[in-house]
Amino acid sequence: MSAKRYLEDFAVGEIIRGGALRVEPDAIKDFAAKFDPQVFHLDEQAAKDTFFGGLAASGWHTAAMTMRLIVETLPIAGGVIGAGGTIAWPKPLRPGAVLGIECEILEIRPSRSKPDRGMLKIRFTTREDTGEIAQTLVADLVVPRRPA
Amino acid sequence: MSAKRYLEDFAVGEIIRGGALRVEPDAIKDFAAKFDPQVFHLDEQAAKDTFFGGLAASGWHTAAMTMRLIVETLPIAGGVIGAGGTIAWPKPLRPGAVLGIECEILEIRPSRSKPDRGMLKIRFTTREDTGEIAQTLVADLVVPRRPA
Repeated sequence: MSAKRYLEDFAVGEIIRGGALRVEPDAIKDFAAKFDPQVFHLDEQAAKDTFFGGLAASGWHTAAMTMRLIVETLPIAGGVIGAGGTIAWPKPLRPGAVLGIECEILEIRPSRSKPDRGMLKIRFTTREDTGEIAQTLVADLVVPRRPA
Repeated sequence: MSAKRYLEDFAVGEIIRGGALRVEPDAIKDFAAKFDPQVFHLDEQAAKDTFFGGLAASGWHTAAMTMRLIVETLPIAGGVIGAGGTIAWPKPLRPGAVLGIECEILEIRPSRSKPDRGMLKIRFTTREDTGEIAQTLVADLVVPRRPA
């Protein structure tokens, strides 16, 4: 990871890329057993008769793997701290896929009330090695300003 | 869990409640080690000098625990299947909190093109036993219609 960055160190339109992370079938099932115990995330055979037509990762597992990629990719001073966002899963994520992340800076907003920080609005695109999009997330992150 | 429900079995304004799930400190750290390895999710002592001022769960861990509560609470035929939504974490989630879920039906939309299904828009509120809100999620779920 490169040197940690402050709010002043980002530019609107900049895209920062990272990855890769391979989606293992056992990881899909382990996550599901803990957090999303539904048959289409747990069992290849039984998943065939469901909406997904086969084993697929929980969307929240996709989100969690994406966070791992973001933490490894985006060098923000103080860490990657979000208050929420808008998330979408355009397609099922299958075992064997290899994920990468693109972080596109959409907005930079210094805080009016707190001079030591600001917000970055970022579009995070989680892409398979085939080019297909597994997840989009637009989120606001709290980012410190460079100390004087 | 009660009998599985179809799109026709829900009513706008209905609220379905479930829980509880206790947030253990080791669960916070285990999730963080896998998916969100940042000091404020990994180590009580080191977390004191960060934005959070102490150990706090990853937002994606809150989302994953919320999914567990939803799967145990919301009896949809075919399972709980979402395409995305808007998520927010109004406050840090601390070890020892006990989470419950409220599922409020906001909209019911039969599909125009696919007569066997429709969408439910639901507001999922993840609440601590103190009454404080740990997460809000408004999501669209794919729900089958009752077979003729």
